Amino acid sequence: MHLSEITHPNQLHGLSVRQLQQIARQIRDKHLQTVAVNGGHLGPGLGVVELTLGLYQTLDLDRDKVIWDVGHQAYPHKLLTGRYDRFHTLRQKDGVAGYLKLCENKFDHFGAGHASTSISAALGMALARDLKGEKFKAVAVIGDGALTGGMALEAINHAGHLPKTNLLVVLNDNDMSISRNVGAIPRYLNKMRLSQPVQFIKDNLEEQFKQIPFVGESLSPELGRIKEGMKRLAVPKVGAVFEELGFTYIGPVDGHNLEELIATFQQAHQIPGPVLVHVSTVKGKGYEIAELDQVGYHAQSPFNVATGKAIPSSKPKPPAYAKVFSHTLVKLAEQNPKIVGITAAMATGTGLDKLQAKLPNQYIDVGIAEQHAITLAAGLATQGMRPVAAIYSTFLQRAYDQIIHDVCIQNLPVFFCLDRAGIVGSDGPTHQGMYDIAYLRCIPNMAIMAPKDEAELQSMVVTGVNHTSGPIAMRYPRGNGYGVPLMEEGWEPLEIGKGEILRTGDDVLIVGYGTMVYPGMQAAEILSEHGIEATVINARFVKPLDTELILPLAKKIGRVITLEEGCVMGGFGSAIAEALLDADILVPVKRFGVPDVLVDHAEPNESKTELGLTSHQIAERVLQAFFKQQVSAVV
Amino acid sequence: MHLSEITHPNQLHGLSVRQLQQIARQIRDKHLQTVAVNGGHLGPGLGVVELTLGLYQTLDLDRDKVIWDVGHQAYPHKLLTGRYDRFHTLRQKDGVAGYLKLCENKFDHFGAGHASTSISAALGMALARDLKGEKFKAVAVIGDGALTGGMALEAINHAGHLPKTNLLVVLNDNDMSISRNVGAIPRYLNKMRLSQPVQFIKDNLEEQFKQIPFVGESLSPELGRIKEGMKRLAVPKVGAVFEELGFTYIGPVDGHNLEELIATFQQAHQIPGPVLVHVSTVKGKGYEIAELDQVGYHAQSPFNVATGKAIPSSKPKPPAYAKVFSHTLVKLAEQNPKIVGITAAMATGTGLDKLQAKLPNQYIDVGIAEQHAITLAAGLATQGMRPVAAIYSTFLQRAYDQIIHDVCIQNLPVFFCLDRAGIVGSDGPTHQGMYDIAYLRCIPNMAIMAPKDEAELQSMVVTGVNHTSGPIAMRYPRGNGYGVPLMEEGWEPLEIGKGEILRTGDDVLIVGYGTMVYPGMQAAEILSEHGIEATVINARFVKPLDTELILPLAKKIGRVITLEEGCVMGGFGSAIAEALLDADILVPVKRFGVPDVLVDHAEPNESKTELGLTSHQIAERVLQAFFKQQVSAVV
Repeated sequence: MHLSEITHPNQLHGLSVRQLQQIARQIRDKHLQTVAVNGGHLGPGLGVVELTLGLYQTLDLDRDKVIWDVGHQAYPHKLLTGRYDRFHTLRQKDGVAGYLKLCENKFDHFGAGHASTSISAALGMALARDLKGEKFKAVAVIGDGALTGGMALEAINHAGHLPKTNLLVVLNDNDMSISRNVGAIPRYLNKMRLSQPVQFIKDNLEEQFKQIPFVGESLSPELGRIKEGMKRLAVPKVGAVFEELGFTYIGPVDGHNLEELIATFQQAHQIPGPVLVHVSTVKGKGYEIAELDQVGYHAQSPFNVATGKAIPSSKPKPPAYAKVFSHTLVKLAEQNPKIVGITAAMATGTGLDKLQAKLPNQYIDVGIAEQHAITLAAGLATQGMRPVAAIYSTFLQRAYDQIIHDVCIQNLPVFFCLDRAGIVGSDGPTHQGMYDIAYLRCIPNMAIMAPKDEAELQSMVVTGVNHTSGPIAMRYPRGNGYGVPLMEEGWEPLEIGKGEILRTGDDVLIVGYGTMVYPGMQAAEILSEHGIEATVINARFVKPLDTELILPLAKKIGRVITLEEGCVMGGFGSAIAEALLDADILVPVKRFGVPDVLVDHAEPNESKTELGLTSHQIAERVLQAFFKQQVSAVV
Repeated sequence: MHLSEITHPNQLHGLSVRQLQQIARQIRDKHLQTVAVNGGHLGPGLGVVELTLGLYQTLDLDRDKVIWDVGHQAYPHKLLTGRYDRFHTLRQKDGVAGYLKLCENKFDHFGAGHASTSISAALGMALARDLKGEKFKAVAVIGDGALTGGMALEAINHAGHLPKTNLLVVLNDNDMSISRNVGAIPRYLNKMRLSQPVQFIKDNLEEQFKQIPFVGESLSPELGRIKEGMKRLAVPKVGAVFEELGFTYIGPVDGHNLEELIATFQQAHQIPGPVLVHVSTVKGKGYEIAELDQVGYHAQSPFNVATGKAIPSSKPKPPAYAKVFSHTLVKLAEQNPKIVGITAAMATGTGLDKLQAKLPNQYIDVGIAEQHAITLAAGLATQGMRPVAAIYSTFLQRAYDQIIHDVCIQNLPVFFCLDRAGIVGSDGPTHQGMYDIAYLRCIPNMAIMAPKDEAELQSMVVTGVNHTSGPIAMRYPRGNGYGVPLMEEGWEPLEIGKGEILRTGDDVLIVGYGTMVYPGMQAAEILSEHGIEATVINARFVKPLDTELILPLAKKIGRVITLEEGCVMGGFGSAIAEALLDADILVPVKRFGVPDVLVDHAEPNESKTELGLTSHQIAERVLQAFFKQQVSAVV
C-alpha cells in the first residue's frame, strides 16, 4: 500500500512492521519535500513518524481520540488522515494548516498551536466519555518541552488523582524544545532516557544479588523476600516522579522501533487509570542534516533538500525586527550589567540567542513557562535589575495574570518586548498577535509603545531599558523592517507618551500605530493625488496617549482615521475614541484594524488585503468614509 | 518580651524556645481577636505561627528576604514586622492590608494575593543577588495547595536546574487549599506527611536487614555493601519527586515544634542550591473550633471567639449572588446531566460545593489550576457536555490564553461564570475584578453578559447553559443581591445580545451594565427631581451589544452616560463609544466606571464613593457634565 492510498488511519490495521516501515519512509519523503518547498516545521514531524504509525495501529480511530500537543509535529498525522492529496498546500492560504484546527479534519479532535494543552483537553474528553457511558481511548501526545509548561503539570496533578479515568499520555521525548530544553524535568527525563527500562533493572538486581557470596547460595529461602523488597524499592528508580504522581509509567521506549512501540502501546491500553508511555525520539529523524542541527531545522523557510540550505530570496531583504531588537539589546546589555534578557524557550525566535552567546550571565531561558518568566522578571526588578522579557504577543497571553498581579499592581519596571505582534502569516489564528493592545491597555501603570520601523525600534529598546518608574511594553511585528538606516550607538530614549507628526494636511487626520504608520503615510500620498491632504501622526504610544498632540489636530481637522495591526475592539483606535469623547471632541472616527474575526493562515500581505489594510485600501476607505469617492474608480 | 515590643523581626534572635512559645501564644491571641472583630483569614495564619518564628530566628531579616505566597497566611509575619500597633485596622480602609503589599512594609519583599507566585519571585531575587555579587538568603514560603498551580511547578522546574543558585522553598503543608486539596501532588505530600522522615527509613531498613537470619550474623562483610545499595534505593522513597527535580528535600518536619523547626532551618541554610523544607502544619492551630472546621474557618466574617459563631448582621440580608448562582445551577444540572460545574479550588466561594453535595458526578475541582480548568472545560465541550467554569474574575486572568486559544478560537460552548467581578472590598487590588470586560471583549466568538440583579442572574445562568453555539461569559459581583423575587423554576433564556429599557426620558440616556443598572435607575430618579428625565437601558450584554436598541436612542437623546463596575479603558463604555462612532452618531458620551488606577482595600461602598459611583454621585456627575448644575447644591 502506498501512503497516497491511505485516507483513513484504520487502514493501518493489519499492516506488517515492514509495510509500516515503507509507509514511514513515504511519510518522511512527502513531509520533507513539502516543507522544503512551502517552509514549515520539519524536525518535530520527522521525529514522530513511527510513534504516529505505531500508536495508530493500536487504536480504532473511528472512536479513539488522539490529541496532539502544539500541532507542529502532527504532519504525519495529517498525511494519514486524508490530507495527502492537499498536503502541497501546507501553510498556504486556504490550504492545509501548519498547526491543528478542529474544523480541518474529523481526526483533529482539538486544535493546537500553543504548547502544553493536550493533557487537559484529553482529560476533559475522558471525563465526558465516562459521564456519558461511552467507550473510547483518549490519548494525549505531548513533547518533553511542552511538559515544562505549568498547565501540563496542572493536568498531570489532576489526572494522577483519578485512578478510575483511563487516559494515555504519550511523552514524545526528543530532548529538545525548539532550542535545548531547560529545567529539572527535562534533565530528569534525560536521565531516564539514558537508563535502561524498568524490567531490566529488576532483572539485573536479581542477578547482582545472586553474585553476592552466601546470599545467592545459602539464602535461597530468604531470597524471594529480599528480592521482592528490592523490587519494590527499585521500581521507582525509573519513572518515580510519574509513578508518585499516580501514573503508571512505561518506558523509555525506542521511538523509532515500530515493533517495540506497538507492543508497548498495546500493553499500555490494557492498564486502567492514567498511563504515561515515555517514547524516546530523535528530532529530524531520517534527514541527517536536520538530525545534526535540531535547532536550525525545527522549522524552516523553503530549502534545498540535498544541501539543507535555505533557498535565497530573489532580492536581499532588510533585517528582521527580531534581529534589530536582539542586536540593539546586546549592545545595551554590554554597557549595562543590570539588563537581563528573559525568554520562554524562544531563544532563536526572539533573537536572544545572540545575548546568550555574548553575555550568558545576562540571559535566562526558563523553558516553556511564560507565567514563571514574568514573575521571575518581577523578582529581578525588585532588586534593581532591568529585566527584558522577550515573548511573542500570542504567548504573553499565558502570563496575563502575572503581568497584572506581579508586575503592574506593584508597578515594577519590567520591559515587555512583544515580538510577532499583529499579523503573523502562515502560522494562523493560534499565533496571530491581535489582542495585546487591548489586553495590556486596561492595566494601570503600564506604558505601551510600538515602533513605526526598525530604527524607531532601536530607540524604543533604549526607551524601555531606561524606563525605571514602572512597566513598559513594546510590540513589534514578525518579519522584516523597511531598510531604514540603523544606528550602532548614540541612541536616545524617546519621551514617554509622545508621538510625532510626519505630514500635515487639513482634510483628514490619520493616526497610525506601529506597523501601520508607513501604510498610513503611503495612503496619505495616494489621497494627495486625489486632492485630499492628510495629517499623519505616528502615535508611538497607545498608553499614555499623546492627547496634547492628537486632540487639537482632531478637533481642527474634524475627520480621524486610526490605523492599527490588532483587534479594533478595545484597541488603539478605541483609545483614541475614548480620549476624544473624554475631551468632548465630537468628530467622526474610523478605526481601521482587525475586526472581530479570527484571521486564518495566509501570507501576511494576503491577510492585510483581506482586512483592507493595504495603503491603497486605506486611501479608498478614507475616501468612501469621508469624501464619498472611490479611489479605485479614480486611479 | 511581649509581642508588642517587637518592631523588627531580628529581635527574635537569641530568644529561647520557651520565649518563642510565649510570643507564639501572643501572636495567636492577637490574630484571633483581630480577625474575630474585623473578619479576615484565620486558619492559614494560625497554622504558620511557629513556622514564621522558627524561620525568622534563623535569618537576618535586614538582608534575607522571605517571600510569602498568597499572603493570607502572613498575619504572624505582619505582627513581627512593626505592624502590631496598627493591626486592629486589618482589612479596613487605609489600614493594614489583608494580603501583602510591596509598599506596606520593608519586610514585604513581594506583594501577593493570588497563589503560586512565590518561588518565581524568590528565584528572581536569588538570580539578581548572584549577578550583583550580593549575599542574602531568598526564601519562598508556599502552601501545598499553591504548589498545584502550574506556575509554581514551572518555577520548581527552573530552580531545580540551577544547582549553584541558593534558594530555600519552605513548603507549608497543611493538607488543605481553602477546601480539601485536589490532585496527585497533595496526595503525594500527604503520603510523606504520614511517613517517617528519611533518616528513620534508612535506620529501619538496616534493622530489618539484621533480622534476616544468616544475613545479620554471617554476612557482616557484605552487609555494608548491601546496606549502601539499599540506602541508595531507599532514599528516594521520601521526597523522591523533589530530589529527582534537583531539590535537596528535608522533611517532613513538625510545623508546631519550634526546636525541630529551628534545627531544620539551620541545617537547610547550610545546603547549597535549591532546598525544599517540607513542614507539616495544622490549619487553624491553637483555636480548636478552626482546627475542627478548616474549610469554614479559612476566612471569616466577624465572629464570637468563644463560640466561633458569626456575629449576625443587624438586619437580614438578601441572598448572595454566589448563592443564587449555585442554587440555580444545581436546579438546572439536576435536569440536564450534561452540565458539569468546574471550580479551581474555590468550591465554597463559588457555591459549587452545593453541586458537589447534590450531583458529585457533575462537579469537578481541579485544584488551584485555572489554566487546566479552562482547557479541560474545552475538552468536555468538544464531547457535547455543558461545562460551567465558575472562577472569580481576578483568577480567570490566569487562564487568559486558554480562553483565547482553546475555547474562543475553536468556538467551543464553555460557560464562564465570573464571580467577584467589579469591586471586591477588603481583599484589595490583587482581587478586584476590574479587567474582565476589557480582556474578554476583544476575543472573537465570545458573548458577555452581566445581570442587573439576582433574578436576572438566574435568567442568565439559563441563558449560558442554553447557549450552545459558542463561548459565553457572565460576570456578577461579590456580595448580596437586592432581595428581588427569585424563581424556583420556569426560567427562560434571554435573547443573546438584547438589552431592555427600564425607564424613558428625553434628556439623557443612561446605559448601565450589570451592578450599575440599579444605581443608574436611582440616579435617574434623583435627576427627575431636578427636572431632568433620563432613559435608562439595562444593556445585559456588552458583546454582542444591542446596537439596535441603544444607537437610535443615543442619537435621539443626544447625551449618553455609560455605567460599569470595571475599568473604563477598553470596557463597557468603550464598547458603546465604538458602536456610536462606527454608526457615525456623534453625541457626547461620558463613561463612568473605574478609571485607570488601582483600587485599594476598603468597604465596597467606600470604594464606590471614592470612584464617584454612588447613585447620588452619578446624578451629580450627569448634571455637571450636561446641565451645568450641581445636584448637591440643589438637594
